[in-house]
Amino acid sequence: MSEMKYVNLNVLALRDFCREVFGKIGFNSEESNVITDVLLTADLYGIESHGVQRLIRYYNAFKEGSINVNAKPVTVFETGVSAVIDAPFSMGQITAKRAMKLAIEKAEKTGVGIVTVRRSNHFGIAGYYTKMAAECDLLGICMTNTEAIAIPTNGKKAMLGTNPIALCMPADPVDFWFDVATTVVTRGKLEVYGKNGKALPTGWATDENGRDCDDAKRVINNIINKSGGGIYPLGGESELTGSHKGYGLGLIVELFTSVFSGGTTAPHVVKSGNGDTSFCFAAIDYGIFGNKTKIRQNFSELLTELRNSPIAEGCERIYTHGEKEAESCKEKMETGIPVGEKTLGELKRIGDELGVKIDGLF
Amino acid sequence: MSEMKYVNLNVLALRDFCREVFGKIGFNSEESNVITDVLLTADLYGIESHGVQRLIRYYNAFKEGSINVNAKPVTVFETGVSAVIDAPFSMGQITAKRAMKLAIEKAEKTGVGIVTVRRSNHFGIAGYYTKMAAECDLLGICMTNTEAIAIPTNGKKAMLGTNPIALCMPADPVDFWFDVATTVVTRGKLEVYGKNGKALPTGWATDENGRDCDDAKRVINNIINKSGGGIYPLGGESELTGSHKGYGLGLIVELFTSVFSGGTTAPHVVKSGNGDTSFCFAAIDYGIFGNKTKIRQNFSELLTELRNSPIAEGCERIYTHGEKEAESCKEKMETGIPVGEKTLGELKRIGDELGVKIDGLF
Repeated sequence: MSEMKYVNLNVLALRDFCREVFGKIGFNSEESNVITDVLLTADLYGIESHGVQRLIRYYNAFKEGSINVNAKPVTVFETGVSAVIDAPFSMGQITAKRAMKLAIEKAEKTGVGIVTVRRSNHFGIAGYYTKMAAECDLLGICMTNTEAIAIPTNGKKAMLGTNPIALCMPADPVDFWFDVATTVVTRGKLEVYGKNGKALPTGWATDENGRDCDDAKRVINNIINKSGGGIYPLGGESELTGSHKGYGLGLIVELFTSVFSGGTTAPHVVKSGNGDTSFCFAAIDYGIFGNKTKIRQNFSELLTELRNSPIAEGCERIYTHGEKEAESCKEKMETGIPVGEKTLGELKRIGDELGVKIDGLF
Repeated sequence: MSEMKYVNLNVLALRDFCREVFGKIGFNSEESNVITDVLLTADLYGIESHGVQRLIRYYNAFKEGSINVNAKPVTVFETGVSAVIDAPFSMGQITAKRAMKLAIEKAEKTGVGIVTVRRSNHFGIAGYYTKMAAECDLLGICMTNTEAIAIPTNGKKAMLGTNPIALCMPADPVDFWFDVATTVVTRGKLEVYGKNGKALPTGWATDENGRDCDDAKRVINNIINKSGGGIYPLGGESELTGSHKGYGLGLIVELFTSVFSGGTTAPHVVKSGNGDTSFCFAAIDYGIFGNKTKIRQNFSELLTELRNSPIAEGCERIYTHGEKEAESCKEKMETGIPVGEKTLGELKRIGDELGVKIDGLF
């Protein structure tokens, strides 16, 4: 990617383009706005892998019928603190936003709301939905499973997804915003190394025999062809470096998403999870633990202490989670969103097919 | 440790000894039984660091007044789904068991119960309390902060504790039982390497300048003297291997324990956390997501698939979390609990001072 040329696109122009594309595909304007906002938030936060570069994948999924514009999610089980939603072939972003909204409503009534979803599609960045809770001054949590790509500790077959966990807690001057895969890295990172012909660091991925492998292309081909191997859990190769911890966290995500929604578990999810992805959304009113102002202050103080603590030799700065994203967002609102030439070509093709142009670009 | 001589002690004899010791210290028989059960469960599970080898630390804490036998925990805030308990200088195990019981009661009524505790003492293995929830056919979660021992990513001063997360979910034939520090390793592991003069693996700990350090004694001395450095978060040295992920998880544990209880955050906890440790206990009735039998079956099936999945070259077996502990427990119930000669000497000294003998041993 670092060798690829980038063009900075004006945020509003790109936003209008995406909205119009989703409108042409068949979504109403509210839905188009939601999907666009999730995609562009990823780009603004600097998470390119989940931004507009994914538009082509979504577009193809519509054409193949894996995403159904007219999907009707149904709540199949509900209590005062929970709900389970069956959302066959729905657009992930729309279902996810509705589900987190329901979790928030429940949290505002009872203190806690947990909503699971099954049979949906990729929903973008998990952290987007946790931010919704934080905007209501609640703690937000979000998880999703994915097609199996991670091996269990001591294994050589991908059995779990990258299974991210996201959590957002209101804080000043910047929210704590945590959104990480429970694997060492994501597939996107391997792809970047593969494109640049760089050797993978030790502890990232295995070959088809379950041995540490530095050949990105081999690992990716194995994953695509399901010939064995995959990405290590967070913690790397063995228990010595905590591999069993990341493996367990991935399993916990699987429990809260596919198992608690009655959905399909990672080893059985196919077609990149199209029509078969499970989510979990939780909102907690942290006022159930006392005075919210004081709690928020105490937490903000802890984050400040961490940022101001002594820096290791050779390092430049200690971050708390969400700082990088907030700074990236501020910068890109001014300078625009960098889009690689490959993605630009894809956007152009989609635009041509649907009769949508990006103002001033093509 | 591997160079130390071990003696296997009969489980019932060791149990009676511990119960009598805690009785002499001033606890009633129910309390003595609880503390003993937590300690011996750790030994039976093979988690020696949290077993009877800690008796001397607890004993000294009583003598110093850091643990108060007559502590009276008070619920200072409560809702239908939550409670906050102030438990100044209380014995961690007793307060923890009461707090998890309260979380379970709330979960049985509303579906979810979350109870936080402040100003207590070390409570043994976090996983013990999650098992209580699982025995009631609920999902159990438990976290605790500790004195700061972990550096933040890019930092060189210990700012967070080992901050373990434990979770237990009922499953067949063996519960999913996950109990891990959010650091790469615990201090106990460093101590073992130090005693044996072994070099620390890369990505475990830093020197006082924040550089990776393989000298266990130097790291431990720095930690004791608070001269800088500490253990890396899960994910190791840098973002390349996911250091920021473990760092964020440690922060989340701090949020749910000290921040949500109004307790002391890790950087301000001193004296090994005596009288200043915060906990969080959560119980979830997973029936809030539908048919419990079906959910349990689906999860058990996933765990079985993981255990039976292809094994990496050079490895022997794929575990799911809790299997090792269940097998260790079964074995040690027959063969006895292995106790190192140093610990044995400590037990003998405590016994001599209090007038308690281990039947048939000394």
